[in-house]
This record gives sequence, C-alpha cells and structure tokens, in this order.
Amino acid sequence: MSTASETSSIEFPAVPEPDEQVKRQAIARQEQLTKPAGALGRLEEVGVWVAARQGVCPPRPFARPRVVVFAGDHGVAAHGVSAYPSEVTGQMVRNFLDGGAAVNVLATTAGASVRVVDMAVDAETPAVVSARKVRRGSGSIDREDALAPEQVHAAVTAGRAIADEEVDSGADLLIAGDMGIGNTTPAAVLIAALTATEPVAVVGRGTGIDDQAWMRKTAAIRDALRRARKVLDDPVALLRTSAGADIAALSGFLAQAAIRRTPVLLDGVVVGAAAMVAEELAPGARQWWLASHRSAEPGGTLVLEHLDLAPLLDLGMRLGEGSGALTALPLVTAAVRVLGEMATFAEAGVGGPTEAEATGPAGVGGPQA
Amino acid sequence: MSTASETSSIEFPAVPEPDEQVKRQAIARQEQLTKPAGALGRLEEVGVWVAARQGVCPPRPFARPRVVVFAGDHGVAAHGVSAYPSEVTGQMVRNFLDGGAAVNVLATTAGASVRVVDMAVDAETPAVVSARKVRRGSGSIDREDALAPEQVHAAVTAGRAIADEEVDSGADLLIAGDMGIGNTTPAAVLIAALTATEPVAVVGRGTGIDDQAWMRKTAAIRDALRRARKVLDDPVALLRTSAGADIAALSGFLAQAAIRRTPVLLDGVVVGAAAMVAEELAPGARQWWLASHRSAEPGGTLVLEHLDLAPLLDLGMRLGEGSGALTALPLVTAAVRVLGEMATFAEAGVGGPTEAEATGPAGVGGPQA
Repeated sequence: MSTASETSSIEFPAVPEPDEQVKRQAIARQEQLTKPAGALGRLEEVGVWVAARQGVCPPRPFARPRVVVFAGDHGVAAHGVSAYPSEVTGQMVRNFLDGGAAVNVLATTAGASVRVVDMAVDAETPAVVSARKVRRGSGSIDREDALAPEQVHAAVTAGRAIADEEVDSGADLLIAGDMGIGNTTPAAVLIAALTATEPVAVVGRGTGIDDQAWMRKTAAIRDALRRARKVLDDPVALLRTSAGADIAALSGFLAQAAIRRTPVLLDGVVVGAAAMVAEELAPGARQWWLASHRSAEPGGTLVLEHLDLAPLLDLGMRLGEGSGALTALPLVTAAVRVLGEMATFAEAGVGGPTEAEATGPAGVGGPQA
Repeated sequence: MSTASETSSIEFPAVPEPDEQVKRQAIARQEQLTKPAGALGRLEEVGVWVAARQGVCPPRPFARPRVVVFAGDHGVAAHGVSAYPSEVTGQMVRNFLDGGAAVNVLATTAGASVRVVDMAVDAETPAVVSARKVRRGSGSIDREDALAPEQVHAAVTAGRAIADEEVDSGADLLIAGDMGIGNTTPAAVLIAALTATEPVAVVGRGTGIDDQAWMRKTAAIRDALRRARKVLDDPVALLRTSAGADIAALSGFLAQAAIRRTPVLLDGVVVGAAAMVAEELAPGARQWWLASHRSAEPGGTLVLEHLDLAPLLDLGMRLGEGSGALTALPLVTAAVRVLGEMATFAEAGVGGPTEAEATGPAGVGGPQA
C-alpha cells in the first residue's frame, strides 16, 4: 500500500531478547531464599523479570530511574472533549518545572528524577523543555491529520533520541509520562483502531467530563476512527493521522528503550496507546515493558489485554504524568532488593520443607507424622 | 454464659473516632491540588484516611513506621499441617535478628524498622526477643486448648504493652507481622468460626503443602472448629481455645494501637485473623486499620469482607512477617506526601475545569465550544 513507505522511513533494528539464562538463575535463586517458594507472589516474578532484563542475577537496585513527561496539546480539545481548557497544558509544564505536580512528588518519594519535554504545547514554554518541539498543538484528528509527514518523522525521532540520551546518561529504568489537555481522545482512537473496538467501549471520562462532553468526545473518536482505520497497517501513518507529536514521540521513546535493553515501567492509557504503536514499530518491544497499573480509563484495560501485560496495581488512577508508574516503582525496587539481599536457607541456617524436594540444608527436621 | 468473665477480665476502653473535621478538610484539599478531582484514585482516599487518623491536614509523612513480628509455634504443626518443621520458627527468629529475611529487606526498602517478639517459639531464643514469652509452643488446638487462662491473659496484655511501648517510643504507623510454622491453621479456625464458614472454604496451602497435608490441615481445622464454636461470643476464650500466644498478643496489639489513635497497616491471613478478634475485643478498632493486600490464602479475603476493608494490593502474596504491609507502605507514604506536598491550583497558577464547578482561580480559559 502507498503508506508503507512512511514506516519504512523510520527503521528500528530487531528488538533484543531478555536473557533466558539469567532468568533461570533468578528463578533458582528465588527458591533458595528464606521463604516458601512463591510466597511473595508477583514480587518474585518482578525480581526475575528485572534480572533477565539487566542480564545479571541478582539484579541491581536501580541507580537512575528516570521519568520523561511528554507534553502536547491537541486540536480536538477545542471541540469540548475535555473538562479543562488547553491553556492548562502549558501551565502544568510550568508546574512540573516548579516541582508542584503529582509527578514531582511521586518521583521524589520513589527516588526518581523527572524530565519534561514540550513536543506540541500550544503555548510558549522555557527553552529547557522546548528544544524538540514540533509545533504548537497537533491537528484536530476528527477532521484533519494530527501531523504533517515531516512532523511525525521528527516526533518519533525525537522520542528515540531522548531515550538514547537518557540511557547514555545512566538511566537504568525508564518511565514515560504524558501531559496534554485532550490527549485521552487520540489515545482512545489509537486503542480503538488497533484493537478493533467500538468508540463507546474505549471512551473514558478523562479529566472528569460530564455527559455532554462525553457525547462530544465519543463523536470525535468515531470521526477520527474513520480516518485511522485507513492506515491501520502503517504505524507511522497512524501516528501522523491520529496521534500527535507527544504520542508519536512517546512511541519512539518506548521502542528505543527496548532497543537499548532498558526496562520500562508503563503508565496509563495515553502511554499505553503509544506503547501499542511502539510494539507495531518494533515488534517484541513489549518484552521490555512492565505494566504498572490498570487505569480507570476503559482503554487502559484494552491496552493491557492487547499487549498481554498484567498490571501491578489497580487503584482507580487516571492522572497520567507517569503517576501510576511512579506509584508502582517502589514495588519494583522492593522486588529487586528482595532477590538481591535476602539470605538463602544455607546462609541463614534455616531448614527447608520437610518433603523430599527440600531446598534447604539437609538434616533439619524430619518428615512430619 | 460462664466464659463471659474471661473477656471482662481484659477491658479495653472505648475506641476513639478518627477526626471527621480533618477528614473534610483533607477531602477539600484534594480538590485544590493540581490534578483533576479524584484522578489519583485510592491514593487520594488513603491520604484523607491518614489525615483523619493523625488529626491534622495535610498529614505528616511517617516519622517512625514500625513493624513488630510476633513469633510462636503451634502444637498442631506436629500433626502434618505444614510443609516445614517447627524448628524453622526459631531459625527464622535468628534470621530476622541477622537481617536476612524478607521482612528485613522490605522494611529497609520502605524506611521502617523491625522488632521481633517471641511469644511461644518452641526453642530457646535470645533474651532480646523472649522477655514476653508465654510458653514454648501453644497447644494443639484440634484436641486441646491453645493456652491456659493465665497464659491468654498474659499474651493479650503483652501485645497491648508492646503497642504502648512502640507508640511511646514515637511509632506513628504500626505494622504487625507473624512468624510461626503452623500458624495459618489457628488463623483459619478463628476466621471460619467468626465468619461461620466451612473448613474447606477457608483452608489454604500455607507455606505450600501438598494434597495429603491439605487433607490433614482441613481435618485439624474441622476438629478445632468444634471447640471454637462453643466460645464464639467470648473473644478471650476464643483466643485461649483456638489461637495461641502469638495470635493472642497480635490481637491485643492491634486493639491497643486503635486505643492509642495510631494507624495500622494490616498484613495477611494470620494478622487478619487476629484483627477479627481484636475488633471483637475493642469494637471500632478497625477504623484505625488499613488493609495492605489481599492474601493468596482464601481466609484473607474472608477477613477483608468481614471487616469491610478494601486492600491496596493483590499480588498473590502469602508469606506473612508483615511482608504484604511493607510492600504497600510506600504507597501509603506516597499518598501522604501527595496530599501534603503538591501545589494547589492557586499556588501554581493553573486553571481549573471549564465548567461552573471550577475549583481553580477564575479567569483562566472560558467554557469550551
């Protein structure tokens, strides 16, 4: 098809595989630690997951967990799909820089640092965040393309470059966040398109819209979806018609993190929509992503099912900014430290199970009557 | 009834109420912070919950979160209800003191400190943990009382005294943990008795027992339940016949924490069983408890339903030691810090919703077309 050349213009190398041998080592180590096998549930799985991505067992605690918040406005916000006006996006970028937003507080609490990138905010923003900016506001996807061809290329390339910069600066866990009034509308369109779902099943309340806005949002998604479905087989064309510079950059970032063998903690519905496109751009990238939480937005669950990812948390969160991922980060850290720092049965002189499959030192306790 | 005097010998004063006025202040503050109302889901509720318990808004980050692990052996373990021999309980107490167990790693990660108390370990333990010890191993509850009358009194009193000591030493969040081979059997008996549930619906795999041990455990629970049901109306008599010194102390500890207005993060099925009895001893104590996780043990879900508590996590954990509570502690800390440290709309100069119910400063953006 004619659009195939769009994606071929942005080529990702093959996604590397996590280390299967280290994974087996990590599973074996979990069984040596002073707890019944499997008693820490998902925490044990997550420790193994990180070890296989780091390629070392026991895994290392994260030295530089890093959040990148991709900000951008969306033309569709002018058509009543959000409870907030677009001005809020630029104001929130300032709030991020001043340290007053949820992402700042949650990052500080979890020991992560935050970078903000203005990809398409419809306002002037400080130079420190606007170096990669593609345009002021992406197109209103219910009636026009979100981006011009050279803009989608620039946005995906920017996301890749940002991932490279962060990994080169020592980031060993990446979190992507989103900020943009109206951005759950393109997210819903991408999710509906890639999962063949009807608009009403994917549309959510976003920032907290009323019934009238919900109807406007559903209609906008329906109209945008007609345009999106024509380019379903071409992820770059899909980003161009139906996403926006922020979401296109997110997709490039998430794909490149996988290329760079760097684990990612996914956030909610906007990052999830970008992740679905990233998996199309770089098949297998999902192996490098851990789902932090199940968003309260219905699209979030569709993303998790499509990517076959099980979330760590289900707390009814729907803020974006990377807030869900940062809330889950301490659990991932705990999982890594448990696998690395707990004593083994042998080290602690603790006996194993009484049955024949005992993994602890022999001679402690006989079979029970 | 004749056993009524047992509970009347251990009187708890009325449980204080959380601060309703501070709760309303905290809810109002959540709506002023730079995020859509409710967008942080359970995290917002938890922040409000802590504020109402601390009696101050915004709430203070915890200065001294403290874990107390109550260790004890159970005679029933000699009858094949566990995958591990009783010797492991004493060995694990040593592991706790050496810092090699899951509770140690998770506490360090979450910024909490750990105290271990030997209530009834069937081994000699260091003086630092055995000062409150009631006996070596509690009775085999399928055929005899767990404790003598003076022993149950001593155990509950010890738990209360330990809570007092910790609060007097500055603990502002308490976590109770359990360690004891066989202790999910008395926990299952208490839960089955207080929720009128059949043994098969409450028995779990504990440390990971096979089918034969599962049948022995179910039979032991059935036999113990016949004895427990005779004293259902008298919580102290129930602890005496069907619990053990560790679980009796846990009940006293959890009730006294509420009396002392100190929030508690509950752990899994053993702590949950003790919590159910504590709610009988001091009605309303549950208002001071937050459920950290849903245990993989079926009894854990029965506890949550009985106490009407919604867990923060559901990660298939079933270790005990306070491990589930410590895994959830960073979420509670995050909730407290979000409510205390995020900027308000007014402080950040961020506009609120476009609708009439806007909570931010006026004049930022008009209603959307």
